Amino acid sequence: MAPAPPRVEIGNEFSRPDGVPVVALAGGVGAAKLVRGFALEGLGRRLSVVVNTGDDLEAFGLRICPDLDTITYTLAGLSNRTWGWGIEGDSFRCLNALGRLGADTWFGLGDQDLATHLWRTSLLNQGWGLAAVTAQICEALGVEVSVLPMAEGYTPTLVETDAGRLHLQEYLVREKCGPRVRGFEYTGLDSQRPAPGVEKAIRNARIIVICPSNPFISVGPILAVPGIRQAVASSPALVAAVSPIVGGRALKGPAAKMLEELGHPVSAEGVARIYRGLLDVFVLDERDAGSAPAIERLGMRVVVRNTVMDTPSAKRALARALLRLL
Amino acid sequence: MAPAPPRVEIGNEFSRPDGVPVVALAGGVGAAKLVRGFALEGLGRRLSVVVNTGDDLEAFGLRICPDLDTITYTLAGLSNRTWGWGIEGDSFRCLNALGRLGADTWFGLGDQDLATHLWRTSLLNQGWGLAAVTAQICEALGVEVSVLPMAEGYTPTLVETDAGRLHLQEYLVREKCGPRVRGFEYTGLDSQRPAPGVEKAIRNARIIVICPSNPFISVGPILAVPGIRQAVASSPALVAAVSPIVGGRALKGPAAKMLEELGHPVSAEGVARIYRGLLDVFVLDERDAGSAPAIERLGMRVVVRNTVMDTPSAKRALARALLRLL
Repeated sequence: MAPAPPRVEIGNEFSRPDGVPVVALAGGVGAAKLVRGFALEGLGRRLSVVVNTGDDLEAFGLRICPDLDTITYTLAGLSNRTWGWGIEGDSFRCLNALGRLGADTWFGLGDQDLATHLWRTSLLNQGWGLAAVTAQICEALGVEVSVLPMAEGYTPTLVETDAGRLHLQEYLVREKCGPRVRGFEYTGLDSQRPAPGVEKAIRNARIIVICPSNPFISVGPILAVPGIRQAVASSPALVAAVSPIVGGRALKGPAAKMLEELGHPVSAEGVARIYRGLLDVFVLDERDAGSAPAIERLGMRVVVRNTVMDTPSAKRALARALLRLL
Repeated sequence: MAPAPPRVEIGNEFSRPDGVPVVALAGGVGAAKLVRGFALEGLGRRLSVVVNTGDDLEAFGLRICPDLDTITYTLAGLSNRTWGWGIEGDSFRCLNALGRLGADTWFGLGDQDLATHLWRTSLLNQGWGLAAVTAQICEALGVEVSVLPMAEGYTPTLVETDAGRLHLQEYLVREKCGPRVRGFEYTGLDSQRPAPGVEKAIRNARIIVICPSNPFISVGPILAVPGIRQAVASSPALVAAVSPIVGGRALKGPAAKMLEELGHPVSAEGVARIYRGLLDVFVLDERDAGSAPAIERLGMRVVVRNTVMDTPSAKRALARALLRLL
């Protein structure tokens, strides 16, 4: 029924001389916007996106990788912009039928989205690694950018809350980020290594961009994969981060709530402090320009731009600004 | 994500005094019609249907049980009458998306149907047996009749053909029954035993009906499960078969083609010969009444009825006729 698909190539062709190799460390929606901006700027295979898999979920025996899929679907032009996850125009006939059978259905699984999880799980069960599966899916969907999982194992982030310890998706989706957060556990990451292609991409990059993603549940797990933080720190690339906090608020998701509950300043500066020591440049939104001096005192250059990527041209403009940092 | 559902009861409550316990040995569509007739006659939990699982398929890591599902969906009022499999009004969004990813998609998987396979596989992977899973699905769908898999293991029927050895579903669906059949292999059946509930149902039955199903690929595997043929043969129940061949043709499926290619008479008599020694009664369609004397000479009583169950009343009439054999 499912013969091995064609062999796939993982990672970028660094021998290509035509431009600057870029690495983006990415979570979900915010990252996808910036990554889309780079793609619209024509980076193609010069861009490697290292994606968080700490938000992965195993349900109904399927390996579900929400951040990986958000990045892939966005690059393939399939993403559902209204929901912020899944596929445009998707339906829930299978999920509704699962509910009729007695299954828990709090996690959204669209019918088309489900195909990705089934196919991925099927290939993993045939012995493929997650990086190869991701590369094959990207190839099938016409995505030229190199999308790489941070690591290949299933290493779900657990959220310690006043309602107990929750799987990240239980916290995000089932509990709608309600419980107060006390901390995080990146389960199993200690025994992981960067997925194939990740270290090479970081080593060859001229710019490494930490996308405007949640520092605790999106970027944190990526940097906690043994070897990745060190690779970023020792890379000759310029390392920049784009603030996920604009005007004291997160554009999407619980970043602001988490900063507050964990005792950090709920501001771009609060995020910059978390990345201190790793960054050459911190990119602030225009409305936070007043924070620039304080962030510069943390030992990084500050660049002020419009970081709210609500149009294709805004996405491209921010991507261009980052490429011009060199 | 999927906590253990409530415990389920497998098999009939034989202590109930209100009527005759009936066992039906069943394949897919033809059997489902007769089983539906029994259900319309109000047998409820007095009816146990022992269903072929030799047509099971493993695809995308899922355990797919087409005959089991056809029986269950029919009893639940969900079956798609146009296709002869799957769920009425189902769509193929997931399957189409799987195709886009590069998967083989010759086997039809409707979006709602897929939920059954996902749920079943998920419970099996949690350690449930197939009988318990089937009972839980029936309970969830409001099916009162006891639907039992013949055995719990994955024991696909292979078809030896002039185009090589094919999985039954490859032969039926992918190759549309084209290749010439030379024989069958019921893989793995030797090490199986009847699923929980099956032997008890047969032991307690007053009537055992072999449904109008294909003798090679539907009924054959059931009788080849170690213990089942012997249980039927030694049961005090009256054993009857309904011919799947009417007027020298199968109403559905490749039964006639298989009889011919394997050198059997393509007739009700050809089927009766295959079941010789096991039957007390053979039920013929009216248009085959002329075969009655020859079949009686095989040592079984012949009953002539309208066996083409194209309306609810025709289904009920045949079910009633079988119940009146006692």
